[in-house]
Amino acid sequence: MEHGLFMVEGYKSVLEFINSSYQVDAIYHTASFDPKMLKLSRNINLCEISVTDMEKISSLKTPQEISATVRIPSWPVLNNAKLQKKFTIVLDGIQDPGNMGTIIRTADWFGIAQIICSADTVDVYNAKVVQASMGSLSRINVYYADLASVLPNLGLPVFGAMLNGENIYKTNFGQQGLIVMGNEGSGIRPEIARLVTAAVTIPRKGEAESLNVAIATALFCSEISRNSQNKVGGQ
Amino acid sequence: MEHGLFMVEGYKSVLEFINSSYQVDAIYHTASFDPKMLKLSRNINLCEISVTDMEKISSLKTPQEISATVRIPSWPVLNNAKLQKKFTIVLDGIQDPGNMGTIIRTADWFGIAQIICSADTVDVYNAKVVQASMGSLSRINVYYADLASVLPNLGLPVFGAMLNGENIYKTNFGQQGLIVMGNEGSGIRPEIARLVTAAVTIPRKGEAESLNVAIATALFCSEISRNSQNKVGGQ
Repeated sequence: MEHGLFMVEGYKSVLEFINSSYQVDAIYHTASFDPKMLKLSRNINLCEISVTDMEKISSLKTPQEISATVRIPSWPVLNNAKLQKKFTIVLDGIQDPGNMGTIIRTADWFGIAQIICSADTVDVYNAKVVQASMGSLSRINVYYADLASVLPNLGLPVFGAMLNGENIYKTNFGQQGLIVMGNEGSGIRPEIARLVTAAVTIPRKGEAESLNVAIATALFCSEISRNSQNKVGGQ
Repeated sequence: MEHGLFMVEGYKSVLEFINSSYQVDAIYHTASFDPKMLKLSRNINLCEISVTDMEKISSLKTPQEISATVRIPSWPVLNNAKLQKKFTIVLDGIQDPGNMGTIIRTADWFGIAQIICSADTVDVYNAKVVQASMGSLSRINVYYADLASVLPNLGLPVFGAMLNGENIYKTNFGQQGLIVMGNEGSGIRPEIARLVTAAVTIPRKGEAESLNVAIATALFCSEISRNSQNKVGGQ
């Protein structure tokens, strides 16, 4: 944070950030890793370090052979035009970095390119978020905003993952909208729930009290993807 | 392991195990927790311990006020009749305890009551698995088996989450079957992949290389749930 950098660990993730618009500050690798594999065309600091040093800087129990420090970009500005004719995930107070990273990875799989987070959502450059996103963070725009003031001005349908809403399997998501997911323990805050124009529920058949929030987000992404496939007669 | 016990942490989870067929060995709580909340009718050892001791026995960064030791039951025997007219999840080498626990919780939400695991799948009584399952472990039957010898004798369709399979949104899952999910890094083993009768793929619209295995499992559970809802004209 002090140096404006975040840490990316593992060959595949480092490679995704090298090949992205992010600015890689330095790459650290152990002797067992051949840096030629990176096919670096840009001028990036490359440091061979000991396994012991890698263990010290790693956030993982089993450190990888390679990690990188990447510059934290200036926060992107929310561009209303980029949200039209698309779906955007809105996270209201997600706390668990594993959930956050998995949501980013899942959004990237389903072609959702933008996520808007409440100010108290976990920091997207937290090492565990970056790890769980498996490189997808390099492609997804993540905005932090005051949801209560921003959402009403976007002019988009606001779907909320809530209890006692419409069955997700019968919901017509249309061509654009915001999908609001709430905090792991307490769900969507009342002041944000008031902005929801369509409460949507994943029907329960068994006994679990709730679904993990990354799982619930994926089910929304999947239904939206399936709907749009059906409409264009996709494969 | 030595004492044949596993650890359950937090009020809700402990309550679910008390109200299950599992045998709770002892309950440990700090002074801030009122054990009357448990409404114990059975004779269970109840110990008040210090916050420091709770921190010592907990696997969590922020320990709960209450935890319990629960007896590891003898492994259930795979009962072919119980697998008929139902869907069963099969896990081939899942390693991450968080994924395993989330899969158990998700199965419980969608009314899937049985999971068959390869012998090298993470131990279901690992503290992190129990934690991520959020009490659902108390309701789900988890079997460990040699998948290569067991699967062919069940006489059920074997759906496998694989690349280049049939589109999951167009797959007719029918009324019963096994859903095979592979290891986080390497997928389904070749000798198990040979037993798959229908390879099924979650279509990708974006750039992520893969989906988290708990997410993929949830998408299969959801499609099966949706299909059966449509058939019975459910809500």
